[in-house]
Amino acid sequence: MEKRKGSLLSFRPDIKVLDATLRDGGLCNNFAFSDEFARALYAMNLAAGVDYMEMGYKASRDLFDPAKFGKYKFCNEKDIQNIVGENKTAMKLSVMADVGRTDFRRDIGKKADSVIDMVRVACYIYEIPAAIEMIEYCHKMGYETCVNVMAVSKAKDEDIDDALNMLGQSPVDVIYMVDSYGSLYPEQVAELTKRYLAAGEKWGKSIGMHAHNNQQLAFGNTIEAASWGASLLDMTVNGMGRGAGNCASELLLGFLKNPKYRLAPVLRFVTDYMLPLREQGVRWGYDVPYLLTGRMNSHPSSAIAFLREGRTDYENFYNELCEKD
Amino acid sequence: MEKRKGSLLSFRPDIKVLDATLRDGGLCNNFAFSDEFARALYAMNLAAGVDYMEMGYKASRDLFDPAKFGKYKFCNEKDIQNIVGENKTAMKLSVMADVGRTDFRRDIGKKADSVIDMVRVACYIYEIPAAIEMIEYCHKMGYETCVNVMAVSKAKDEDIDDALNMLGQSPVDVIYMVDSYGSLYPEQVAELTKRYLAAGEKWGKSIGMHAHNNQQLAFGNTIEAASWGASLLDMTVNGMGRGAGNCASELLLGFLKNPKYRLAPVLRFVTDYMLPLREQGVRWGYDVPYLLTGRMNSHPSSAIAFLREGRTDYENFYNELCEKD
Repeated sequence: MEKRKGSLLSFRPDIKVLDATLRDGGLCNNFAFSDEFARALYAMNLAAGVDYMEMGYKASRDLFDPAKFGKYKFCNEKDIQNIVGENKTAMKLSVMADVGRTDFRRDIGKKADSVIDMVRVACYIYEIPAAIEMIEYCHKMGYETCVNVMAVSKAKDEDIDDALNMLGQSPVDVIYMVDSYGSLYPEQVAELTKRYLAAGEKWGKSIGMHAHNNQQLAFGNTIEAASWGASLLDMTVNGMGRGAGNCASELLLGFLKNPKYRLAPVLRFVTDYMLPLREQGVRWGYDVPYLLTGRMNSHPSSAIAFLREGRTDYENFYNELCEKD
Repeated sequence: MEKRKGSLLSFRPDIKVLDATLRDGGLCNNFAFSDEFARALYAMNLAAGVDYMEMGYKASRDLFDPAKFGKYKFCNEKDIQNIVGENKTAMKLSVMADVGRTDFRRDIGKKADSVIDMVRVACYIYEIPAAIEMIEYCHKMGYETCVNVMAVSKAKDEDIDDALNMLGQSPVDVIYMVDSYGSLYPEQVAELTKRYLAAGEKWGKSIGMHAHNNQQLAFGNTIEAASWGASLLDMTVNGMGRGAGNCASELLLGFLKNPKYRLAPVLRFVTDYMLPLREQGVRWGYDVPYLLTGRMNSHPSSAIAFLREGRTDYENFYNELCEKD
């Protein structure tokens, strides 16, 4: 029987944390972060000992109008360097590239010309071949690569095994479990992590966890995955992310025992930058409608629309969800 | 090796849920619930299939001024009957009696004269002998009895074993784990549940779980405890409870698979009664200061004071907490 790795008091040097605030948080405000915010976040992540900072998406300008989104939707090299300079630090930088929404041959150049260290390819499970094409390309360009297989709560075990086998034979470095709908319970996360880890150990890949907080389980599921061997853990400051948001940096860094992590800079950043965002009306975090889409294992878009309309008739919303499926 | 009980799809008939909204939620508003609120909550719990509803505390009028607290602090028989009538239903009613703050010989009469079914005795671990005196008294009066051993995260394993042995030999029906500070992680809850359950199986006692949401783990810890055999699970509507609050009824009833539970009445009650409470300024639920007291395994009182003062300087608060211990 598999055993948990490490104990609650020990730390595993293989565990690394990735701050996805600009990327997943950007989904809450169309990526309209100020330069001051991004620079302060970068400095804070450095001070907190964060291992990776995700700068945003590499979205295609043909599909998304740059006039309608902040720069972190596109992550042009000069915009990123304007924030991080040459990033001569121990912290690595990542961008996310969605399968089908990234013009990767045009927009992702050689690592030698970029401050970005890792490209995270996001795909649904039926897009694995397209993801592998991007992974191979980015690998050849010199980047670390990562694949985020989204909506894993909808996938069948046999498809997951198939996907893990295909990804195992690719040059990808990290394979992520992504609970896009915040529908997984910790027991399911444990089983899933064991399944991913078995493939990871066979093929020499690390396993990552990206959780959502629809059922107030983002933190619980993240540390559950970590305890069974996941080693790259996503978080966002104050849990900022689409809908119910993500595992909060302040929860995760408060839990991990690696002495290089520091909680105080995160706390100060919440006070100085996240509370003002909320005051400006940017919304994210647990709320009843997200619990309901999470429980129903469905996309949070209907809950986001419900809240945007100012509705509070949760029972009707629940009935609508039940009829849909 | 112990195994989890049941699966995520099955239901265990031994699992019962207890709504503690009037009691733990009352700590947020000095128990100033209107009769309309209490009656609607009672009707909602019945409609939702809830097994136990806690009406409040049996606090001593000598220690607490009835002019300063709502009636659910004292739970006089006539006040309760004014809400629930004779309660000729399948749902049982409970009250909580704090060791040292209840004049139990004066205020707790015979079960034959009361609509209350169960007395829950709350104590710290060093008060077990006093708790047993109350348990024996209430048992003789004809009540089901329950003991809530608070702040178990501060107790040593050997003291817990000692307490379980003493309680095992008492007439108490249910022994609760109470994570008063919201500081336990699921792995700890699993170990603790196994420890409590071993004693419970030896002495013929059920095990209960009362969680707090300081680290957004109240729901996760509750279902973790349930999976290892805890069978009486506390919840409050919308998680209303002291500080970061409790396991939310809407989360727990959305998870449990017993077909007798209904989620829709809870959702309607949140809309009709809990949102108005929040609009009136009653505060509860996860916030950064509670995460910090939870992580430090300390009482939330300092976090409650911090928020009441309108402070948001989390980093300073964290430094103050670190200095205290």
